[in-house]
Amino acid sequence: MSKLHFEDFTPGRVFEHGPRRVPRDEMMAFAAEFDPQPMHLDEVAATQTMMGGLSASGWHTAAIFIREIVTARMRTNGAARAQGVHVPAVGPSPGFRNLRWPKPVYVGDTIEFRGRLTEKIDLKSRPERGLLASDVQGRNQHGDIVFAITSQILVERRTPFRT
Amino acid sequence: MSKLHFEDFTPGRVFEHGPRRVPRDEMMAFAAEFDPQPMHLDEVAATQTMMGGLSASGWHTAAIFIREIVTARMRTNGAARAQGVHVPAVGPSPGFRNLRWPKPVYVGDTIEFRGRLTEKIDLKSRPERGLLASDVQGRNQHGDIVFAITSQILVERRTPFRT
Repeated sequence: MSKLHFEDFTPGRVFEHGPRRVPRDEMMAFAAEFDPQPMHLDEVAATQTMMGGLSASGWHTAAIFIREIVTARMRTNGAARAQGVHVPAVGPSPGFRNLRWPKPVYVGDTIEFRGRLTEKIDLKSRPERGLLASDVQGRNQHGDIVFAITSQILVERRTPFRT
Repeated sequence: MSKLHFEDFTPGRVFEHGPRRVPRDEMMAFAAEFDPQPMHLDEVAATQTMMGGLSASGWHTAAIFIREIVTARMRTNGAARAQGVHVPAVGPSPGFRNLRWPKPVYVGDTIEFRGRLTEKIDLKSRPERGLLASDVQGRNQHGDIVFAITSQILVERRTPFRT
């Protein structure tokens, strides 16, 4: 179990999460609370929209992705701590970029997420941390891209950044 | 009650939503389901993070914003339909840009959202609709920006776009 700090991440590094199924009741519960549009809640009305059927709120898909990465990180951190290893602080995020939903997520679809580290950014304003940017895509069971985002997270550095 | 189509929106148009309070139980419920990090769930651990106290998942703040705009749109549409007015289709969104959380949202904070239409984009691929892009900011009760995003939505045109 290695201690992963900012310095240990190499551009091109790939991470994968899922597959994660999106059940109808969870889809409807999220939409009812945060995105109560007919295309997410009303089976009949949904067939008359651009989506052609009941689909998940894009924000629900994003929340599912966050849950997947947070769960994976907590699992890794837990294993590291059990071995007495210092776990570098990750997060919070200053923001994400390019949030896209190229195709709908329908009831019962299964999503797999795949990310690739594209940028390591030194921060004058936060010399103890660096910014990791990754391009992420979520695909359904047919291989269609249903979600894409550029994630950005702050990770502790082993050695403070000096200009 | 006018029928608002793509042609009716003028860059610079401003919309406002809220104020919306973020209660502790809702904050915890969202974090438990989608973003179970200590900074969002554990009062004591949260004081030792960069946030300095229990804070909302940024994705919860985003979901609250979506709820605000969807509710406002449904209210307007309902009033229009009650007068027999055709309501142009709005949404889905192809994606959002520049999602940022400059400062944390803490328990009990109140957020006000303000958006400004910045771009109207003609789409060769979808001549029946146009894309409206708006810069949105959410501020807490102290006036600090806690949320920012560039929203993009598709809106029905009165006249199809021809190149």
